[in-house]
Amino acid sequence: MLRLMILPQTKILAVGQIKESCILEGMHEYLKRMKGRIEIVEIKDSTKEKESIEITRKLEKLDRFLTVALDEHGKEMTSLEFSEFIKNNFNKNLCFIVGGPDGLDKSILEGVDHTLALSRMTFTHEMARLLLVEQLYRAFSIIDGKKYHRG
Amino acid sequence: MLRLMILPQTKILAVGQIKESCILEGMHEYLKRMKGRIEIVEIKDSTKEKESIEITRKLEKLDRFLTVALDEHGKEMTSLEFSEFIKNNFNKNLCFIVGGPDGLDKSILEGVDHTLALSRMTFTHEMARLLLVEQLYRAFSIIDGKKYHRG
Repeated sequence: MLRLMILPQTKILAVGQIKESCILEGMHEYLKRMKGRIEIVEIKDSTKEKESIEITRKLEKLDRFLTVALDEHGKEMTSLEFSEFIKNNFNKNLCFIVGGPDGLDKSILEGVDHTLALSRMTFTHEMARLLLVEQLYRAFSIIDGKKYHRG
Repeated sequence: MLRLMILPQTKILAVGQIKESCILEGMHEYLKRMKGRIEIVEIKDSTKEKESIEITRKLEKLDRFLTVALDEHGKEMTSLEFSEFIKNNFNKNLCFIVGGPDGLDKSILEGVDHTLALSRMTFTHEMARLLLVEQLYRAFSIIDGKKYHRG
């Protein structure tokens, strides 16, 4: 009997298009290195309220996904702790949610499984998206025992 | 009588050259917007020990500078707290120190006035330098009452 193994998915649900070509270039480099492990789904930027309706609609389609929203008041982790988090949820579908310039609506932040802060500082949402992709690459590298992570 | 007003300086003492053209481009954009308020002094990357000798040599020449080293175990601040820090030290010469891929030597971290963590996560040293420049621009924008900072 042929068994189909369905690999868990990792998605990034992000508000707005990245306009900065350099940020796009950096992201594509990490995405390429992760060989299709990560899929980015973009939502049109609008008012926070409309964005949250659209995010909720997308999340409803993503049944059985563990949801992690980026928020500056969220939980902070070191890169090693983040890789542990990814490792501990390796058999689950993961969905990270990144807001636009004004961040995510309270309704989204209250509805997700986890909130994560990349920093206590405010970064541009474009930079935040690039940093998240880099941290995912770093986490996979740590899990796979690759030499990328130092410190 | 002509009085010369000497404006305080802000320097970034950084280990290694930035190789990523996009990071360089991003940094130059923020530096341009800050109209010469920030000067970057680069130190050749080498062993941590040699780098620290070179950093110490440079710092000795920078008498009466308040020194702030970037370190992932350093103090975390929000962007508003960082702008307060800059504002409170507005009449002082400031020198930020950013290490290379292996970070800064203990001797440097112990000798500086402050340590600052951009995040609990580990970022590449190139990204850390760009983020620092962006946070300085954000801090100046907050102090100057410009609309750049949100959230």
